Amino acid sequence: MSLYVNLAELLGTRIEQGFYRPGDRLPSVRALSVEHGVSLSTVQQAYRLLEDNGLALPKPKSGYFVPTSRELPALPVAGRPAQRPVEISQWDQVLELIRAVPRKDTVQLGRGIPDIGSPTMKPLLRSLAQISRRQDLPGLAYDNIYGNLGLREQIARLMLDSGCHLGAQDLVVTTGCHEALSASIRATCDHGDIVAVDSPSFHGAMQTLKGLGMKALEIPTDPLTGISLDALELALEQWPIKAIQLTPNCNNPLGYIMPESRKRALLQLAQRFDVAIIEDDVYGELSYTYPRPRTIKSFDDDGRVLLCSSFSKTLAPGLRVGWVAPGRYLERVLHMKYISTGASAPQPQLAVADFLRNGHFEPHLRRMRTQYQRNRDLMLDWVSRYFPAGTRASRPQGSFMLWVELPDGFDTQRLNRALVDQGVQVAVGSIFSASGKYRNCLRMNYAAKPTAQIEEAVRKVGATATRLLEEDSCSND
Amino acid sequence: MSLYVNLAELLGTRIEQGFYRPGDRLPSVRALSVEHGVSLSTVQQAYRLLEDNGLALPKPKSGYFVPTSRELPALPVAGRPAQRPVEISQWDQVLELIRAVPRKDTVQLGRGIPDIGSPTMKPLLRSLAQISRRQDLPGLAYDNIYGNLGLREQIARLMLDSGCHLGAQDLVVTTGCHEALSASIRATCDHGDIVAVDSPSFHGAMQTLKGLGMKALEIPTDPLTGISLDALELALEQWPIKAIQLTPNCNNPLGYIMPESRKRALLQLAQRFDVAIIEDDVYGELSYTYPRPRTIKSFDDDGRVLLCSSFSKTLAPGLRVGWVAPGRYLERVLHMKYISTGASAPQPQLAVADFLRNGHFEPHLRRMRTQYQRNRDLMLDWVSRYFPAGTRASRPQGSFMLWVELPDGFDTQRLNRALVDQGVQVAVGSIFSASGKYRNCLRMNYAAKPTAQIEEAVRKVGATATRLLEEDSCSND
Repeated sequence: MSLYVNLAELLGTRIEQGFYRPGDRLPSVRALSVEHGVSLSTVQQAYRLLEDNGLALPKPKSGYFVPTSRELPALPVAGRPAQRPVEISQWDQVLELIRAVPRKDTVQLGRGIPDIGSPTMKPLLRSLAQISRRQDLPGLAYDNIYGNLGLREQIARLMLDSGCHLGAQDLVVTTGCHEALSASIRATCDHGDIVAVDSPSFHGAMQTLKGLGMKALEIPTDPLTGISLDALELALEQWPIKAIQLTPNCNNPLGYIMPESRKRALLQLAQRFDVAIIEDDVYGELSYTYPRPRTIKSFDDDGRVLLCSSFSKTLAPGLRVGWVAPGRYLERVLHMKYISTGASAPQPQLAVADFLRNGHFEPHLRRMRTQYQRNRDLMLDWVSRYFPAGTRASRPQGSFMLWVELPDGFDTQRLNRALVDQGVQVAVGSIFSASGKYRNCLRMNYAAKPTAQIEEAVRKVGATATRLLEEDSCSND
Repeated sequence: MSLYVNLAELLGTRIEQGFYRPGDRLPSVRALSVEHGVSLSTVQQAYRLLEDNGLALPKPKSGYFVPTSRELPALPVAGRPAQRPVEISQWDQVLELIRAVPRKDTVQLGRGIPDIGSPTMKPLLRSLAQISRRQDLPGLAYDNIYGNLGLREQIARLMLDSGCHLGAQDLVVTTGCHEALSASIRATCDHGDIVAVDSPSFHGAMQTLKGLGMKALEIPTDPLTGISLDALELALEQWPIKAIQLTPNCNNPLGYIMPESRKRALLQLAQRFDVAIIEDDVYGELSYTYPRPRTIKSFDDDGRVLLCSSFSKTLAPGLRVGWVAPGRYLERVLHMKYISTGASAPQPQLAVADFLRNGHFEPHLRRMRTQYQRNRDLMLDWVSRYFPAGTRASRPQGSFMLWVELPDGFDTQRLNRALVDQGVQVAVGSIFSASGKYRNCLRMNYAAKPTAQIEEAVRKVGATATRLLEEDSCSND
């Protein structure tokens, strides 16, 4: 075992045994280095490991502290969706979420937007501005339907980190991950077909199924390890499923990373029943662990996985630069991409390609991962502090969104209505289910740098939920 | 009748009667002003009217001339497509066109791209660059699903010119006209439905029908007045048509503007049979006549017309800024837009809104219309000069594309293959038909400022066509 792991274990034991108490300042890096005769960087590595495990909390310029001892909320209960294909509802609630105009006076905890204010984004903005000024560049004309070659080369390089060995010719640039998903769905399924999805599941993909006249079969999903393979196998035996659509890495909304062994097993299931896998990896780069987790696509040996992703969560959604690696469905996906928007806008493609080529993406990702991981801990702390007793919450292993489960029978749509006048909005849980389950759940965004305003917004959500629960219990008396 | 029309008629008569001969210089503006006792601007207006009618040709710094007397090619013959719904083919040929990467060494006469090099575009580039540099703006975040409000207000104002009285709330911004069309088709039709289309018709819309599992019924279309209303009525009586998709203004590929009376009659037909009209107006602003022609949408009193357009042909396709005015189908279109790409990229929307708000769009349009109209005359001249005898050609009344018809039995795909090594490509006619008709036709772009290289490219197309025809006639002997 390496030195830093040893040291981390030693410190961890001391913390857990109460030698250091919640709120205590932990020994300085220098002191530990002297005490244990190891380098400063070994101590720093040990502290980072403790931090990843929620046992140490860094405070700027004051060192590491034992996190205050609030207990973490319990994990959400795995959903029990109907085990049959259903027509997808919930469009009204999704529309409510996406028709909202960003407003300064509202904290929109419901949106799926990353922090776009990081200084590590600056080179991208400079590059965009430079490209915009040039009239002779292909930035204003139609590009070819595959997308900019330079960008596709950079994406292929990036995908090596997730275990995918692909070339530029295997990729199609899309208008965001949204278009990647809808083109993939249309390339693999027809009107009336059944698609198996994780549950809760990304509302955008489900609304696409709805819009294309397909049905969703929601598969129970564990909040730590992902879609249930047993339930999926049963469903594949019982129903003529055409594709499986899921987000195995840093799942939206649950935040888990599906273990590698389960990814392999899922692929084998798909091969046995000959169905396609539409893998949404849009949050994969934002995993808190390094190296980033592998994709199902990286195990794919017969081209049945369509990997969909974008820079919307790692850089900025307004760029609308996504991609799909469609495997054997390349030609169909090209057709579907063409009929949906034609070739994608070249300017943002050129700027993102520059950003990656010049090595700006990795430092940016490192910064965002760290920020999001810290914010997660803070958000979990706020939830345990401000939400009613019995509230459950996910343990995101990446990305920037927390799934919160309130007691059975609670209605988060009612909560949202009660919050309108308080300048806060959350995403209601029911949009993450084809049949409107998870009415007692909600999703909150923790991407932005923590401020008193955000903490106050979370407190308001918790307080309002508490009030509504109390009202209900009174009216039940 | 106003003074300038009187004067234009007088001059026109003199030209037609041979008083002024082809190639002659016409009297100077000053001389006519003195001769007829009218203002200089009245003479200039008269000359512009003559120019619009092809009777006078301005040459920079030398005044107006009688156009040289080459006879114009005859008009194309109205198509006789199969009078039954067909599955759409031709994807392979479309893919060939759109997968082509723009290359310096090839004159791509086949592409539908405007001239993006005009100095009147400069304010747009400046604005794009300014917006790109700002990280605090909503340019990088998701906008709301309707699109930027400021842009929608400007588009609503713009649409007044085509007779449409709409508000920002009636519009949805899309990722190019392509997305407007596909969202409209999906909002009004289901899998298996039949859509009536003009013939020849825009390949993008037809490929969308194909991709969504719909069938096209091609309606014979007159090269000067558009879709045949008699044939359409017959088709509506015989088939359960769900929508009519057409481009009545500056039609692609035929270039005609459908007369107003026929637009009204078409709408009445649609009302009688209760079908939707999907109107592609993407070239409407590029009409050579002023004021621009009205849209069918402008007569719509029960919300059945979905007007689709974009800035791809008036400004630049790489912006991917389009819109749809979906009438009663607004909510369905919103859903279809959401599942196809989510909200559209905000930066180009903000830049285009600036451009319109600051009054840059009208001068730009005036310049482009003039350029395209002159180029049309030159292109028609080149076709009569370089193409084989018997070649027919359209008379575009707007936009920047010429439809050319070669003798029956000619194969323009073969022509294109023969042109590959010569650095020229045209759009083959068969992609403009659901069933692959118009194999003897082609479409050529005349947007760019005329150069010796472009003339040489057109000459090569004509010479190669002549050679192929001669080879055929030899092998038939």
